[in-house]
Amino acid sequence: MHYRYLLFLLLLAANSYADDGYRLWLKYDLINDAPQRETYSRSAQFIALTSNTPTLKAAADELQTGLQGLLGKPVPVIANAGNRTGGIILTIRKAQALAKDGYQLSREKGNLVIGGKTDAGVLYGAFALLRQLQTLQPLETLPRTSNPKIQYRLLNHWDNPNGSVERGYAGESLWKWYELPERLDPRYRDYARANASLGINGTVVNNVNASARFLTREYLDKVAALATVFRPYGIRVYLSVYFPAPKVIGGLKTADPLDPEVRKWWADKTKEIYGLIPDFGGYLVKANSEGEPGPQDYNRTHADGANMLAEALKPYDGIVMWRAFVYKADPKADRFKAALEEFGDLDGKFDPKVIVQVKNGPIDFQPREPFSPLFGAMTKTPLSIEFQITQEYMGFATHLVYEAPLFKECLESDTYAKGSPPGAATVAKVVDGSLNNHALSAIAGVANTGSDRNWTGHPMAQANWYAFGRLAWDHTLTSEAIATEWVNMTLTHEPKAVKQITGLMMRSREIYVDYNTPLGLSRPWTGVHFAPEPWQNKSSRPDWTAIYYHRVDSIGLGFDRTATGSNALAQYTPKVRQVWDNADQCPLPYLLWFHHVPWTKKLSTGRTLWDELCTRFYTGADSVSWMQQQWAGVKPAIDPELFANVAGRLATQRKEAIWWRDAWVLYLQPFARQPIPAPFKKPDRSLEDVKRLVDIYQLR
Amino acid sequence: MHYRYLLFLLLLAANSYADDGYRLWLKYDLINDAPQRETYSRSAQFIALTSNTPTLKAAADELQTGLQGLLGKPVPVIANAGNRTGGIILTIRKAQALAKDGYQLSREKGNLVIGGKTDAGVLYGAFALLRQLQTLQPLETLPRTSNPKIQYRLLNHWDNPNGSVERGYAGESLWKWYELPERLDPRYRDYARANASLGINGTVVNNVNASARFLTREYLDKVAALATVFRPYGIRVYLSVYFPAPKVIGGLKTADPLDPEVRKWWADKTKEIYGLIPDFGGYLVKANSEGEPGPQDYNRTHADGANMLAEALKPYDGIVMWRAFVYKADPKADRFKAALEEFGDLDGKFDPKVIVQVKNGPIDFQPREPFSPLFGAMTKTPLSIEFQITQEYMGFATHLVYEAPLFKECLESDTYAKGSPPGAATVAKVVDGSLNNHALSAIAGVANTGSDRNWTGHPMAQANWYAFGRLAWDHTLTSEAIATEWVNMTLTHEPKAVKQITGLMMRSREIYVDYNTPLGLSRPWTGVHFAPEPWQNKSSRPDWTAIYYHRVDSIGLGFDRTATGSNALAQYTPKVRQVWDNADQCPLPYLLWFHHVPWTKKLSTGRTLWDELCTRFYTGADSVSWMQQQWAGVKPAIDPELFANVAGRLATQRKEAIWWRDAWVLYLQPFARQPIPAPFKKPDRSLEDVKRLVDIYQLR
Repeated sequence: MHYRYLLFLLLLAANSYADDGYRLWLKYDLINDAPQRETYSRSAQFIALTSNTPTLKAAADELQTGLQGLLGKPVPVIANAGNRTGGIILTIRKAQALAKDGYQLSREKGNLVIGGKTDAGVLYGAFALLRQLQTLQPLETLPRTSNPKIQYRLLNHWDNPNGSVERGYAGESLWKWYELPERLDPRYRDYARANASLGINGTVVNNVNASARFLTREYLDKVAALATVFRPYGIRVYLSVYFPAPKVIGGLKTADPLDPEVRKWWADKTKEIYGLIPDFGGYLVKANSEGEPGPQDYNRTHADGANMLAEALKPYDGIVMWRAFVYKADPKADRFKAALEEFGDLDGKFDPKVIVQVKNGPIDFQPREPFSPLFGAMTKTPLSIEFQITQEYMGFATHLVYEAPLFKECLESDTYAKGSPPGAATVAKVVDGSLNNHALSAIAGVANTGSDRNWTGHPMAQANWYAFGRLAWDHTLTSEAIATEWVNMTLTHEPKAVKQITGLMMRSREIYVDYNTPLGLSRPWTGVHFAPEPWQNKSSRPDWTAIYYHRVDSIGLGFDRTATGSNALAQYTPKVRQVWDNADQCPLPYLLWFHHVPWTKKLSTGRTLWDELCTRFYTGADSVSWMQQQWAGVKPAIDPELFANVAGRLATQRKEAIWWRDAWVLYLQPFARQPIPAPFKKPDRSLEDVKRLVDIYQLR
Repeated sequence: MHYRYLLFLLLLAANSYADDGYRLWLKYDLINDAPQRETYSRSAQFIALTSNTPTLKAAADELQTGLQGLLGKPVPVIANAGNRTGGIILTIRKAQALAKDGYQLSREKGNLVIGGKTDAGVLYGAFALLRQLQTLQPLETLPRTSNPKIQYRLLNHWDNPNGSVERGYAGESLWKWYELPERLDPRYRDYARANASLGINGTVVNNVNASARFLTREYLDKVAALATVFRPYGIRVYLSVYFPAPKVIGGLKTADPLDPEVRKWWADKTKEIYGLIPDFGGYLVKANSEGEPGPQDYNRTHADGANMLAEALKPYDGIVMWRAFVYKADPKADRFKAALEEFGDLDGKFDPKVIVQVKNGPIDFQPREPFSPLFGAMTKTPLSIEFQITQEYMGFATHLVYEAPLFKECLESDTYAKGSPPGAATVAKVVDGSLNNHALSAIAGVANTGSDRNWTGHPMAQANWYAFGRLAWDHTLTSEAIATEWVNMTLTHEPKAVKQITGLMMRSREIYVDYNTPLGLSRPWTGVHFAPEPWQNKSSRPDWTAIYYHRVDSIGLGFDRTATGSNALAQYTPKVRQVWDNADQCPLPYLLWFHHVPWTKKLSTGRTLWDELCTRFYTGADSVSWMQQQWAGVKPAIDPELFANVAGRLATQRKEAIWWRDAWVLYLQPFARQPIPAPFKKPDRSLEDVKRLVDIYQLR
């Protein structure tokens, strides 16, 4: 074969694969800048492994693959560097500065050393080094030492045994239960690589609305097979458990957590699990929540249930994550207050192996919520925070919403717990255990992954998985820095385009809130959580209607949670309460969360509530056009298939944003009895038209 | 860049993509044999297009892509060959020998001419030529002319609007309803290419258990967007309709097919559809079947319902496919007879635009069924045959079952209708319209495609899609020829491996039948159609239990359908009846379909029924080990990822085959009251053990 022919074949090979997003941020495409490549190459002439654990081997493999792609030449893996210089050395070492999973990157005797206290730390260091190259940073600026701020960094998969994913919008479950354990999809390893690259170290593989199947030997064998693939990447497997499992598959008459037989069943089951999965991570439990059974069925408490499982886990290095997402069907109560009402008295009563997992907000993953009052109130119990990466309430896989600002907003919220000075008691500091000196710390993200080729449906939703993982490791990173990093690794290095896309991402969540739930509105949803239904007033439960949340009437809009209303604000510390308690001073993003505001009340913007609402709905929807323009502007810098994919979804988002706008303004106007303020124009369809469209999405 | 570097990059590019099956049989990998390549290249120096219709352009594109891959060099597309020779000319021409979609491959004036009466014919010819190269056939043996034997060759997708696929085992639906119409997944085009390569010319995109959504403008816009992608590939879109749509989305008070308003609604709706999709293919209807509404709800007949839709389609080139899959919940009736009982009297009463779609067998896609009696009995009505490609009753996506022998077995069955001589009145000749001189002819396959990267879950299940399409075009092809062709195009050219894999495929269905439903057993299923449950005797309907079908008792096994029993055999012509009527002469594969046979009765094999059953169950399960060995033997010839994928699934199949065997023999033994015959050994687990395993798969 001669040169030109070979060149042709090479181009052919390159062109036959458009960027389908499968590689995520681990693309490892050849760096275009030859001098830059040369500089990197001088420091990456070999990879030396001081020992050969599966995790160190995984780190070396990843470096080898990554460097080969980025630098365009093979890099040998050797056992011992000897006197050689110009290479990369992977080594486990004890160092004062290193925490359990931490890593150190340093230059020593002409080599680049990636050190970790554990082999997982080395693996994280290897990914950090690759990230440095992928974002074209000079190796000189390598951060020296990095330790995770939170100990357990987990994805929660709401995946069912039939392959469906609850609240999944990216295809089916990644786990092929019918093929396991005999066949291992190569994708399992790529899943582990992607998580490890972020420092995620655990995965709950099944839905919190759990099937008892997963505790049968048949399914444990399947889960164990997954664990085998994940193990070298430092990822432990956890299971969501169905609380009545001792009855359903154990044949017992009860699942009472204080019953000795039940406790024995769990102890035996746990032993069986550890026999199959020695590094099993533990249990996640949704109990007495939305119809799921739990210890209250036997007049026991959440603590009784959690502590029973903790006892079963006592001989092993495993934990219990007990969810605080509970609320009763009581039309007079305020769902906002339900979790603390049930869990407040249990503070301090949990076994040290238990962590209580709290959703970021008091309701349910709305586009904007105040932080859950539990973070300021339960100081004696380690609390894990649960974010939702999948976009259940954020436009499924067709709306572009970069979630890091939402995560950060919550993590940086100040609980002012224990009368701390400003900034000393943020939610982040509660969660990372530093505020209340808890040994356990954890963070969970409800995964947005699925069997779609690009993992997340919307190509830009990959950034949300990425951002969750990066923040789980280090919650002090800024949303913008994470976005810039991700865009560079995933989409383009072209500086103008990077800036433009980052800007688009940074505004996206606020735009979504504006056309969807501005000023502190929440939950205008029907059963499908897709189409607008603020008018929804019938449901099997009062707290599953829309009107329960927005409380519209002829006077105004919003849920009074001050002392004159549900007094949910009393669940916060006084300083927090003070910020939100006064309708005149309450920041606008939270206004209708806490106040029933008259239509004609003038807000800090100078507009009345009605005019401000309309302004948000209209400018929000219009801003999607701005997003489309911004995206159109980066076309030359983006892979064509990927460009078209996002452009198509933005067109859908534009259409649906107008739908949302129209639904809200047409529904609210008869209450507000005011015209749509200039320069906005009344929708050219009726409320009935809008509803008809919603109805379509409810048809069988 | 110099030569060696380039070579390295090329190998890198080649190696970074394992064969994930996405390309199906259209792989177009470089032909290894250089002289062979050279020979082909001499005849493929250019592609000349005599006109530029989208379909001819698609044909030229495909040839260009295919030749570039196969021959390793670019082939230009030119407008006019002029005096040039050594090229390929695509041309639409009138020729006596050509039917509508037919093609002719010929050598004319030094060029290779692909001629068709329509541009779709040319497209099929282009794929035929590529197939010739892909299977390394000399161009000299090009078949001259090929016409499809059946006019409408369709896939039926049982895809729901929520993305799930009823009886789908390869991920979610290919159609991304939430993204449509704004985003067009590039996969839609590859779907169309794959179908066009086989001559499939229509696709019903939604489940026969239809949602009314698909008839709303919102969804018609989405369907129209799909149609736009499919159109250049000669594929027309059809819709399954929900019979009460005029009520559900039209706001009418009735869906009575004789009501003038209802008729007008359908006429208007059809007009709307053709406004959006000018080449819309028509409607598929499941009515008064398994709880679906239909004309009988208004005391009208199937013909009334079908003819109403035909009337709506009158101004357009569209057809109605009305399914005959009906049976009432009557414990005393024989479901076997239900379809003809309902449809027999309607023969001759359907509009000429209606075709009645009949499942291959009288029950429901069992691993082996006699052909449906309708094929011999309804001579005045064009009948479409419906096969199930997806493996609802054949091990989902973990059992390797090559279905061409099943398809062929039915198509070649002799109905002896009209007293025809042997071979003159096969099911194939009923279906292709030749026997009864029908203008309409159609064949439908329930698709096994899904969003899995390799389309079909089990890599070998691609062969079933392929075989269905090839037989839809030409039902005289042999199963073996199709398998050989597919293996060559998809897996390997290595002659020994081709032979071994083809052999494995050819035996696979019989092996499955042996461990699953030998000797004419059927429907030992529970709700999930996955696990064995021959003991199942409770259901919401008597005909949804297992015992309804196998009729086990202490005397024997099987369903007496002779005159002493349900007399279903009377639905067949006398000659057919004669073959099956006598238990002593009835071919063993059909024995228990028609006879209740005593346990101790000696069969033609010399064994008693019980011993024969055991022999089938045991050798069937053991034969999966043989399949594993055969597959292991071809390892060097197969892409490693693909090899491991199939090997893993075979291991699962082996495990489950033993499960099936054990379930049957342990369940039947107390009735037969006989030991497992030597050399087979009694299962080392109990019936309770087997049931427990089944129960797991029924847990929420």
